Amino acid sequence: MRLSHYTLVLLLSASAYTTTVKAQDYYTPAQRKQWLAVAEENKPKLVETLKKPVAVVTTVKDAASFQGWKTQPAGGVNELLSTSFKNKKVATLDFGEHLTGHFTFKVNSINSTPDAPLRFKLTFGEVPAEVSVPFDPYEGMLSRAWLQDEIVTVTELPATITIPRRLAFRYVKIELIGSSQYYDFGITDAYTTATTSVTAKPGTLAGATPALVSKIDAVGLNTLKECMQTVYEDGPKRDRRLWIGDLYLEAQANMYSFKQYGLTKRCLYLLAGLAQDDGYMYSNVFETPEPHAQKPSPFLFDYSLLYNVTLKDYLTATNDTKTANDLWPVAKRQMDNITTYLDADGVFNADEAVKNHWWLFVDWNDALDRQGALQGVMIYSMKQTLELAKLLGKEKEVAQLPALITKMTNGAKTKLFDKKQGVFVSGKNKQVSYASQSWLILAGVVKGKDAQKVIKALQANASAVKPGGPYLYHYYVQALIDCGLTADAKNLITNYWGSMVTKGADTFWEVYDPANEQLSPYGFYPINSYCHAWSCTPVYFIRKYPQIFQVKE
Amino acid sequence: MRLSHYTLVLLLSASAYTTTVKAQDYYTPAQRKQWLAVAEENKPKLVETLKKPVAVVTTVKDAASFQGWKTQPAGGVNELLSTSFKNKKVATLDFGEHLTGHFTFKVNSINSTPDAPLRFKLTFGEVPAEVSVPFDPYEGMLSRAWLQDEIVTVTELPATITIPRRLAFRYVKIELIGSSQYYDFGITDAYTTATTSVTAKPGTLAGATPALVSKIDAVGLNTLKECMQTVYEDGPKRDRRLWIGDLYLEAQANMYSFKQYGLTKRCLYLLAGLAQDDGYMYSNVFETPEPHAQKPSPFLFDYSLLYNVTLKDYLTATNDTKTANDLWPVAKRQMDNITTYLDADGVFNADEAVKNHWWLFVDWNDALDRQGALQGVMIYSMKQTLELAKLLGKEKEVAQLPALITKMTNGAKTKLFDKKQGVFVSGKNKQVSYASQSWLILAGVVKGKDAQKVIKALQANASAVKPGGPYLYHYYVQALIDCGLTADAKNLITNYWGSMVTKGADTFWEVYDPANEQLSPYGFYPINSYCHAWSCTPVYFIRKYPQIFQVKE
Repeated sequence: MRLSHYTLVLLLSASAYTTTVKAQDYYTPAQRKQWLAVAEENKPKLVETLKKPVAVVTTVKDAASFQGWKTQPAGGVNELLSTSFKNKKVATLDFGEHLTGHFTFKVNSINSTPDAPLRFKLTFGEVPAEVSVPFDPYEGMLSRAWLQDEIVTVTELPATITIPRRLAFRYVKIELIGSSQYYDFGITDAYTTATTSVTAKPGTLAGATPALVSKIDAVGLNTLKECMQTVYEDGPKRDRRLWIGDLYLEAQANMYSFKQYGLTKRCLYLLAGLAQDDGYMYSNVFETPEPHAQKPSPFLFDYSLLYNVTLKDYLTATNDTKTANDLWPVAKRQMDNITTYLDADGVFNADEAVKNHWWLFVDWNDALDRQGALQGVMIYSMKQTLELAKLLGKEKEVAQLPALITKMTNGAKTKLFDKKQGVFVSGKNKQVSYASQSWLILAGVVKGKDAQKVIKALQANASAVKPGGPYLYHYYVQALIDCGLTADAKNLITNYWGSMVTKGADTFWEVYDPANEQLSPYGFYPINSYCHAWSCTPVYFIRKYPQIFQVKE
Repeated sequence: MRLSHYTLVLLLSASAYTTTVKAQDYYTPAQRKQWLAVAEENKPKLVETLKKPVAVVTTVKDAASFQGWKTQPAGGVNELLSTSFKNKKVATLDFGEHLTGHFTFKVNSINSTPDAPLRFKLTFGEVPAEVSVPFDPYEGMLSRAWLQDEIVTVTELPATITIPRRLAFRYVKIELIGSSQYYDFGITDAYTTATTSVTAKPGTLAGATPALVSKIDAVGLNTLKECMQTVYEDGPKRDRRLWIGDLYLEAQANMYSFKQYGLTKRCLYLLAGLAQDDGYMYSNVFETPEPHAQKPSPFLFDYSLLYNVTLKDYLTATNDTKTANDLWPVAKRQMDNITTYLDADGVFNADEAVKNHWWLFVDWNDALDRQGALQGVMIYSMKQTLELAKLLGKEKEVAQLPALITKMTNGAKTKLFDKKQGVFVSGKNKQVSYASQSWLILAGVVKGKDAQKVIKALQANASAVKPGGPYLYHYYVQALIDCGLTADAKNLITNYWGSMVTKGADTFWEVYDPANEQLSPYGFYPINSYCHAWSCTPVYFIRKYPQIFQVKE
């Protein structure tokens, strides 16, 4: 995830945020300290596994393959590791699966004495294109340093070289770019110390699950496993941090797979301990060198609302009322923002919110008008927060919510629903989008057959703004299931996520448009993350609703 | 130093050496073990000094400057280290002197939270050209990895980054090649932990020493100091090892400056402990990961002979008869090679030696016929070895030497001296060279006025093969002094080494032809070493023969 263009403009005139940050702290120092202490106590120990490459490959151009590159066998690993590398000069190791961790290789001389240092270039790729296309001159929008290529000087043999940075990859291309004509040498070993905090094994799928669905589930589990480090990361290659939106989806998938609730607990506490001074959430936080939020950063409204949903889900799954009570003040505080930009009719004034530096995410798509979707997120979050309050016996503390839910539901029905078209519209231009319909269905503004009609009208509307990526596709699938269009849900999973699998995905991609495999919100597709948390949720759907996916007898 | 072309050809068919190496060991394992133990005991502790940059510069093309590049001021160091580097993107630090050691820099964010890694390219240069000309595509003959540029990925701030390899440089160019548009950062500190094993201060020069000579002496001392690490290295940038030829010249310079004889002792023992199985010397050895020689490598005859001279000089300077007695068997053994390719007239058959895989170095110049020079080295070494034997009361063990000295001296006079030209000639083509005249004068084949005549005839001979670099210039200067042409010696030092000083040398260069500043035996001048042991010997001449260099009253 990245900040969008308009937030960038705001960020660069950062004074708007510093005033917010300087306000008196909403929580007490003792509260924050305790929350961060609990987060630290629940930091999982990473499991390290030594992984060896399974093949040597070359990548070749192939129009039929994902992004135009495929791999071909290029000799055995043992052969590579037992012969001279001096004349070979280049080799691409294939680990056969996506790994997150530290790469090590060993070099030694062969029947001769090293008289000069060696220089290698190593390029790590999650997908074949990353080890095939040149990175420079780099014209992407994100830091060039995310791209996983490293130059290594080896001054003494035998050498064991571990690349200092943690990497995420399946392929490692090793290129020799400096050696002496006076001695020979070989790469004698290569391995990855792979890490994840996942220790549990998820239950097996029912035997009647179709093969493709099983594969989608397996790739989803891999994606989630790779992202579960000492927090739920958004992506182990990039941006390697805890975002509330990714946390919400990962926690859902975890609930139906690994069930490692300690990590969810840690993340909820971490975000609470690092909340803004005004008590609202930062959208994302970092763990090192010590836990901290990204400052300055704009307030991301929809993510703050999903914090509450995550907490409520966590309580439901674990009955850990201690945690839920501990963090209740945070959830309660998020609700105070519902009315900030609400008009008299109970409709969210998105333009005003943006004008006042709020960030509304919902989806990548810059063309999306976010009013309708936010209206849905707000109602959905209020309902979940109310349920949370009920479970904790704290309804009186959010006594305003029932009336607000009603008011905003009515506002959506009367002001955002276009009866003629049969869909919700958003903003001044009355934009029709998958985002608006999905979120207002999740919010229960329309239900059952009425909701199905909205979906059918949406699907029939060629100019409706489509999801820009897996994150919004997730909510759309949930909306389809909620209103009973389970066949559509299944088809979307098997077509959208399924096509990633058939294109060779080991893990699900951050960005994926079947019609444009080189799409990148960052101006350079190799910098996309190809193992991204928010794309893992087929795991959740397949395991929560097995009947939808099983073969009909 | 590198292996010459013809030795390369030999090396690549390495079997010739392995037979030599497999012969029964000439020394006992106990002897070798003891020699290596003494070498280890005498390993000096490196002195670490923290050095800060003194200026920020840019390099600009300038035809009047050395190699066409000069530096210009580009702001203060404090300004650089206290402001944003994000938009500056490039800066070249000038440490004001040549350093050998580890470079560290610190990076921190400025009023914002890092959300992506940074990527830097660092280029280290002993001279301005090295941080100015592109290294790639690299077409030099030595390993590209000698060039001192490194790519660094910084994944977390604040960061303290120390480049793992030891470097030799005055200038550090730091280029930003990857950063995030979402936060600002600066380089907050930069320093070098410089190392040398020199702790002593040399005596001051007489007040009557001309300024240029004082400068030459200072640059020579710096060169020697930088090369004196845990052995006498040939060059701290490249090749960073102990060669006998460099050892000999460094030990001479040390005798008249730092007088740190422990390092000379260590090197003599190290070479002895690592000698070939047949008892003759390896030309060069490495210290790490454990002491070892370069194998396979051809036998370098002239260097093996200079081992004895170094040992004799060491004894004379220190009266350390224990060491000299300990290593006497090694010196004695080297003499056994004198007759190997000697013809009936007492003339060295260089062609036969080369045909049998001996390496005759003498000088860079590939055009040089080495017969005459080797004849001189052999006689010189025999004389010095005989003196060594006398000092140790072991003349009987080398009883063959006096007759051999006479025979080879006569051989040189009768077979190599061209009376008509008044110079020594070498090889089938009767080549006239500075190398032959210098070494045969050092050997005492001609002396005094006769030697002066030879030199004058040489200087008048436009087609005489000139020295290819500082190593041979040293022996030529010594020959000039030995035969009383001290004004010529002084002129050569002040013109040749002096012109390096006036061109801005901080340390003396491995390769220097005043008429071709971009000369390189390696096909790419930035890979030349610009701090090279064998160029430091003006220190020796200026301090041993102060009367030659002082201003006449």
